[in-house]
Amino acid sequence: MVSTAPTLYLFPCPMGDVKPTEVLPAPNIEILKTVKYFIVENVRSARRFIRACSAEIDIDTLQFSELNRHTSPDEVAGMLKPMAEGHSMGVISEAGCPAVADPGSDVVAIAQRKGYPVCPLVGPSSIIMALMGSGFNGQSFAFCGYLPIDAAERSAKLKEMERRIRREHQTQIFIETPYRNNRLIAAMCSALPSDLLLCVASDITGPKQSILTQPISQWKSKKYDYDKIPTIFLLYK
Amino acid sequence: MVSTAPTLYLFPCPMGDVKPTEVLPAPNIEILKTVKYFIVENVRSARRFIRACSAEIDIDTLQFSELNRHTSPDEVAGMLKPMAEGHSMGVISEAGCPAVADPGSDVVAIAQRKGYPVCPLVGPSSIIMALMGSGFNGQSFAFCGYLPIDAAERSAKLKEMERRIRREHQTQIFIETPYRNNRLIAAMCSALPSDLLLCVASDITGPKQSILTQPISQWKSKKYDYDKIPTIFLLYK
Repeated sequence: MVSTAPTLYLFPCPMGDVKPTEVLPAPNIEILKTVKYFIVENVRSARRFIRACSAEIDIDTLQFSELNRHTSPDEVAGMLKPMAEGHSMGVISEAGCPAVADPGSDVVAIAQRKGYPVCPLVGPSSIIMALMGSGFNGQSFAFCGYLPIDAAERSAKLKEMERRIRREHQTQIFIETPYRNNRLIAAMCSALPSDLLLCVASDITGPKQSILTQPISQWKSKKYDYDKIPTIFLLYK
Repeated sequence: MVSTAPTLYLFPCPMGDVKPTEVLPAPNIEILKTVKYFIVENVRSARRFIRACSAEIDIDTLQFSELNRHTSPDEVAGMLKPMAEGHSMGVISEAGCPAVADPGSDVVAIAQRKGYPVCPLVGPSSIIMALMGSGFNGQSFAFCGYLPIDAAERSAKLKEMERRIRREHQTQIFIETPYRNNRLIAAMCSALPSDLLLCVASDITGPKQSILTQPISQWKSKKYDYDKIPTIFLLYK
């Protein structure tokens, strides 16, 4: 999959403290070795990832631009300059797949407008893996990001999701800041009907991976603790 | 990730004629070697996949149950019998990730109800890879499966998707039977406003991979031919 034209490669990386080779196909690392210019969510963790991929890569010869919520749109446009000069580039986010529930899509959109080839690579997506393990409808699903923090708005969003589950048979997927995971489950237990199914998928690919689907009625009486563990939530009927 | 309890492993497989090691992490193949009982979309292609993964596996010692649209719900429930007897099982679909736009979720749902551990493995998802490469919103997206075949119903569905793009900033993702790809693009060119962005992602991970995002106005005047090539379609603003 190494292209001859300068290409924007999207490199997934492990979620949590797992070796790259545990969750990435071998060609990703071969392609990584050919790239010198990177756009990354966090320089420190990107360097750590690249070092873990291969001891052959001399990190000091690589150039990094940081792309996150502090980056201005003007800066983003300038980041692809090495491509205009004939170099391939790589995008790396903090965990999992760049541009999916993570920064990266802005720079991909610019590459698309400029006509540069974009090549996403295979890697762990906690969203897809949670969906696979949930037993929920995989023919129709929506990822909604974070729910609103305001209690009334969150309640309204949960009701809207319930409607889409009932009417459109659409699995609803969302995330929460990990230290609020337990509170979100409690909020769902009080806002949602007891027959609705909630799947909690936590530490995907990690040593404590757990994917558990149960009706709200059972979550109400169950002991759980997902505090500070990266977790995906899914609802279905 | 090999568990001691009998586990239902979900094995992604290559999309198209690509070696398993090109698109799968090495541990998938180690886990595959430990599994003797499989639930598969198609026995022939599952055997071919397993053979391509490792010459060490004696295919004749494996047991396969076929799960596809011809399978009755009663049969599905019986397929997990080896797990009750203490054996791990594997689910393999024809291409990509089982249970996502492919059979498998029924059997996962039963495993969840019975309390068996479910373990999805990393592999290629054309939906996620297309989304990564599109430059579209990866914080909110919906996969809608196939659009209706009836022209009026399809038009209504496209209008509904446009509303969700404008109001909810939600990327819309869908598929078509590959021999109808060109007709679907033509239908979108006549039904959708010229400023809407269409990404056509075809032959993902294959030798002719192409991911192209352009406004409908440009698709109207562009020559294209995606006939019979597995393709993902994405719309956004």
